[in-house]
Amino acid sequence: MGSTLGRIFRVTTYGESHGEALGCVIENCPAGLALTVDDIQPDLDRRRPGQSRITTPRDEPDRARILSGTFEDKTIGAPIAIAVFNENAREKDYSDIKEIFRPSHADYTYHARYGHRAWRGGGRSSARATIGIVAAGAIAKKILREKAGVEIVGYVSQIKNLKFEGDIDLSQIRALRETIEANPVRVPDSALADKMVRLIQDTRQAGDSLGGVVECAAVGVPAGWGDPVFDRLDALIAQAMLAIPATKGIEIGSGFAAAELTGREHNDIFEMQNGKVTTRTNHSGGIQGGISNGMPVTFRVAFKPTATISHEQPSVNERGENVTLKVKGRHDPCVLPRAVPIVEAMLALVLVDQFLLSQTARYENLSI
Amino acid sequence: MGSTLGRIFRVTTYGESHGEALGCVIENCPAGLALTVDDIQPDLDRRRPGQSRITTPRDEPDRARILSGTFEDKTIGAPIAIAVFNENAREKDYSDIKEIFRPSHADYTYHARYGHRAWRGGGRSSARATIGIVAAGAIAKKILREKAGVEIVGYVSQIKNLKFEGDIDLSQIRALRETIEANPVRVPDSALADKMVRLIQDTRQAGDSLGGVVECAAVGVPAGWGDPVFDRLDALIAQAMLAIPATKGIEIGSGFAAAELTGREHNDIFEMQNGKVTTRTNHSGGIQGGISNGMPVTFRVAFKPTATISHEQPSVNERGENVTLKVKGRHDPCVLPRAVPIVEAMLALVLVDQFLLSQTARYENLSI
Amino acid sequence: MGSTLGRIFRVTTYGESHGEALGCVIENCPAGLALTVDDIQPDLDRRRPGQSRITTPRDEPDRARILSGTFEDKTIGAPIAIAVFNENAREKDYSDIKEIFRPSHADYTYHARYGHRAWRGGGRSSARATIGIVAAGAIAKKILREKAGVEIVGYVSQIKNLKFEGDIDLSQIRALRETIEANPVRVPDSALADKMVRLIQDTRQAGDSLGGVVECAAVGVPAGWGDPVFDRLDALIAQAMLAIPATKGIEIGSGFAAAELTGREHNDIFEMQNGKVTTRTNHSGGIQGGISNGMPVTFRVAFKPTATISHEQPSVNERGENVTLKVKGRHDPCVLPRAVPIVEAMLALVLVDQFLLSQTARYENLSI
Amino acid sequence: MGSTLGRIFRVTTYGESHGEALGCVIENCPAGLALTVDDIQPDLDRRRPGQSRITTPRDEPDRARILSGTFEDKTIGAPIAIAVFNENAREKDYSDIKEIFRPSHADYTYHARYGHRAWRGGGRSSARATIGIVAAGAIAKKILREKAGVEIVGYVSQIKNLKFEGDIDLSQIRALRETIEANPVRVPDSALADKMVRLIQDTRQAGDSLGGVVECAAVGVPAGWGDPVFDRLDALIAQAMLAIPATKGIEIGSGFAAAELTGREHNDIFEMQNGKVTTRTNHSGGIQGGISNGMPVTFRVAFKPTATISHEQPSVNERGENVTLKVKGRHDPCVLPRAVPIVEAMLALVLVDQFLLSQTARYENLSI
Repeated sequence: MGSTLGRIFRVTTYGESHGEALGCVIENCPAGLALTVDDIQPDLDRRRPGQSRITTPRDEPDRARILSGTFEDKTIGAPIAIAVFNENAREKDYSDIKEIFRPSHADYTYHARYGHRAWRGGGRSSARATIGIVAAGAIAKKILREKAGVEIVGYVSQIKNLKFEGDIDLSQIRALRETIEANPVRVPDSALADKMVRLIQDTRQAGDSLGGVVECAAVGVPAGWGDPVFDRLDALIAQAMLAIPATKGIEIGSGFAAAELTGREHNDIFEMQNGKVTTRTNHSGGIQGGISNGMPVTFRVAFKPTATISHEQPSVNERGENVTLKVKGRHDPCVLPRAVPIVEAMLALVLVDQFLLSQTARYENLSI
Repeated sequence: MGSTLGRIFRVTTYGESHGEALGCVIENCPAGLALTVDDIQPDLDRRRPGQSRITTPRDEPDRARILSGTFEDKTIGAPIAIAVFNENAREKDYSDIKEIFRPSHADYTYHARYGHRAWRGGGRSSARATIGIVAAGAIAKKILREKAGVEIVGYVSQIKNLKFEGDIDLSQIRALRETIEANPVRVPDSALADKMVRLIQDTRQAGDSLGGVVECAAVGVPAGWGDPVFDRLDALIAQAMLAIPATKGIEIGSGFAAAELTGREHNDIFEMQNGKVTTRTNHSGGIQGGISNGMPVTFRVAFKPTATISHEQPSVNERGENVTLKVKGRHDPCVLPRAVPIVEAMLALVLVDQFLLSQTARYENLSI
Repeated sequence: MGSTLGRIFRVTTYGESHGEALGCVIENCPAGLALTVDDIQPDLDRRRPGQSRITTPRDEPDRARILSGTFEDKTIGAPIAIAVFNENAREKDYSDIKEIFRPSHADYTYHARYGHRAWRGGGRSSARATIGIVAAGAIAKKILREKAGVEIVGYVSQIKNLKFEGDIDLSQIRALRETIEANPVRVPDSALADKMVRLIQDTRQAGDSLGGVVECAAVGVPAGWGDPVFDRLDALIAQAMLAIPATKGIEIGSGFAAAELTGREHNDIFEMQNGKVTTRTNHSGGIQGGISNGMPVTFRVAFKPTATISHEQPSVNERGENVTLKVKGRHDPCVLPRAVPIVEAMLALVLVDQFLLSQTARYENLSI
Repeated sequence: MGSTLGRIFRVTTYGESHGEALGCVIENCPAGLALTVDDIQPDLDRRRPGQSRITTPRDEPDRARILSGTFEDKTIGAPIAIAVFNENAREKDYSDIKEIFRPSHADYTYHARYGHRAWRGGGRSSARATIGIVAAGAIAKKILREKAGVEIVGYVSQIKNLKFEGDIDLSQIRALRETIEANPVRVPDSALADKMVRLIQDTRQAGDSLGGVVECAAVGVPAGWGDPVFDRLDALIAQAMLAIPATKGIEIGSGFAAAELTGREHNDIFEMQNGKVTTRTNHSGGIQGGISNGMPVTFRVAFKPTATISHEQPSVNERGENVTLKVKGRHDPCVLPRAVPIVEAMLALVLVDQFLLSQTARYENLSI
């Protein structure tokens, strides 16, 4: 149950880091959408390891195959099964941690829950399990763009104490995206990117790791998406984001800063602009009462530093013995750059599902 | 669909602020649990308006009735329907805002989504719609306490810039709860409570409102609850919390502070204590890889200042005209104190569902 | 979980035969539908006990109340909670069967599953629990009629060996309905109805009971409803019908007779009529590959004879002792006439959900 | 949504007859179950084409691969993805029916619903889409056998007017299975099997096809499985069976024969046997009030004759023109023998899900 997201556009992911394949099955993707692997591969490439000098050197092509659900390059309404077969699984890297619980990893908790676990490279708890999410998210993005004019853009806004504090121009999505994707950190500021790259390299050298913040926005979301009370748009985004490995928090719009403001300061005043209801400020992050209000949907996601570090650490093993752990293998000293397409994909999945649900919200719009 | 939470212990809430009744239906509550209204009413009383001088003066008894699902004061496995009938609905209070979209309220977004909306007192978007959540949460708490030894405690930790920065002793839940409930703000510090009460009263006087932070912990959660990937325990908690009206963010454990730490600083080192796996620190907030690790589950929820303020504000109406709004009626200048039982209830609903799901996680434990 | 039906138009029923109230909560009914109790009560009246001389003499008005989800007599998109409060619960009628398992009743199986059960009048297993189904079904019928031109008509076609073998003219739904509702058996033949009434009365006199068959049709269902593979339209109808107490079988279209035909005999030949694809015969019962084909949806449901009979029977009790059972109380010697509105309601619930789901089936039809 | 079955043990199938692969993803299979392809392949072999002289000569090995969810040949609690890659797809066989709606097939209805459809060999509507069901069912059977002592056996009881009318000894499952599997028709009577084989061969020769009935039983189901009201065990079985292509009806226990009996004749009298509650007769088919009563669960499923026949038929095409259709290609003149493992698999899926759900039915049985 835990591997399915969505009410109509339902995505079920499968796969472990070192299993045969990873991917997803998507139910209820509307029939008639043009779809090939070319729609999916670019986001998988943004997520894949080995894409730059600051990610893990593990080099996996992560090529997607569409196993079902399309015919002559268009969807047919049937479940879309997508698979990425594992190619570069070096088993020996992990044998020394077979019985040891790595600190702040999921080793111990998976052991406690399931008893039997895939200890190689994190198994199901690996960030590699987000491949299915990114693949499905790419399809969701296409639907959102073509049918609702919605564009999603994510970027790194903080790594340790290096913070992006510039302005973001959401009216120029294409230019913004180019700036972001022009550096390996995916931060919208090339000078800051250079500093971050150096910090990441130095930290890796020191056997340590880094956390940070990803910010994300969806522009063009019409007023009226979201399904209170439990499926408020902000609630669904929060679930989706905290389902990404290594996340520790989310803020919608003003977030925790709202706690220090008064109502007069925080309220987003409505005003008409070009015949459209808008708000002067966007503390609401585009969501009011759990439903989009037509302003950009904006939020921030906190990532903890990568749990896997090469520096020696004390720990315990499955037999309850105190041990010392020194992890070898290949890992990212900072997951933030590769997290950006995952955050975007998750948001796309939430939004496309609400888009489909919104088709039935009003009696006057129903038709056979 | 949006009004149902949970996979096994499924709660569907219903009701609008000024409708005939509000409540919930709970499916799959196990049969044989002793249950009467006395199990539910105390938490409803902690949530109800008019309970203290710093909440809305609207005085509603909010008495629960159990309409189904029990027989001779024990559950029978059938859906438990609970209703609180509205008694004190002053309709005239709202007629002047019938067509005006109140800033940072759900008026506009409900209008955009549904066309036809219950404009009196927020209708379905009202915090009054959490009555069903609190009632169901009270049952969930009872199950967690009796069957899993889990205790939940929430408190206000911040109102505007007044922050609780003392220590919380989660090993003394009963004493902690007494301290918290001894003041109307529900902050675990009576001196700070006095300051907060004054701030709230002054702010109300000024026609303004306040935000803040609620912290919450669950103690006794065994290692092994949570259902990756989408139903990670932290993801479900995030959804549940952001489904509470006026919330803007959530942090699990270290939260956004994690972004500034390195892996060596942030990793929770495992160690054996009394034959049990524990961690030296709890930056993980009791959750690793989306599954509880046996340490206290801890998180913080940000609330924006109440959108309803009596101070005059510009706005627009349903016809797209610029108007000036001056809201009368009775409202909380700060929702935090009454939000505490709602946060607790939401957490209880998430945890009890994971408790039930955990019954089927391991093959070796299945039996007829 | 077991008390919820539907993916979008989701109905959760609650209530026991002798509890405080019975009813349902409906999620995702589109906003803007005109709705009052007057839309619901007529079908409840067709289901209620005491409506004629051949049903139980227990006289319950079964008046519905809408507790939420409407405002100024129109739906608002919020959950619609409906309640019928129990009025005429004679507790003494059941005390003698408190510990005895009545043959072919649910007493033993509820005991085996839940341990603690509401033994008065069947509790949750009572046909009285269909009140919520009939109420929700009435709303579904209204939507189907107004938005899709679908009309549903059910009738009794067999009681014991008395079988209706006349022709049904589905092109004259109104006249057909009048004929059916003109007699207390709800059979479309007044002479046959008289025979059936006598048979029912004689059987009651003898302390025995009768089974039969209900037939049902939906006319106007457009081609394209149904959601293969597990949610094929016929599969969903089968689930819905066998969820009605006392049912033992269902046939779609040709049903079991199909087993004896060859493909050449059974295939429904397509032909164009007035520019529309139709079939010469309707062995398919309006459903092919699990999706409606535009022809009338037709099926038959088998009901066993009422398990409650006043004739003495041997049985066992909760302590595993052999006992003799003689049931007093008021019950229907034949449930068929009152089952007709339940069958119709169930079909309406399945169809309206598929209608809503169909809004998102094709990419070309999506819009914001 | 339509391709998922089950609440806990949730199976999502995917794949079209001539796509790249078919299979399923299973969520919430408990961790620690020994599982390899050898557990799955035998039932796939019973289902595969080309297995005997009376099935389609299309010879496909249908070898399963487990892509995820196991580690060192045991389940880990993660989704189990299974794939069967298509090998023998002769595309030219279908090009002549690209635009023609074959009578009593799903061509027209898929066209009506989805617009764009995979016209080769039925696409998603093909019985080939049951591969994922049979694979998942094999796992369900193993769990049921090992953990609950439940055995499932299905067989053909009728083809056209040739009916098996002998006795079935459910106390000797192994012997019964051997008898059934010893002939290509899967009827528990070798002499009758010979007649049926001849009838099937003659019918194929004549360009025609045959329907029939499959009977199925589950022995060892304990009292207490099933989840009223909508998820009554009989209702779920009915849904599952009518989700199999070509089915037209289902009877539980006495089925339609119940309609002609009185309560005194039909009621299953309880009696104690070896300290266990049993019933003298089993008209209930092992299910009362929607919950198993410990007696064998028995039912019958009607299959229509194969829609694909080689005899010429009139029809219409996508442009609404009258055409004459003469289907080439390879198909089963009678699907019954290959339907047996599908019926068994569907029953297994329903039962294993209820087994898992039953773990949480009683408060007294919960534990951490």
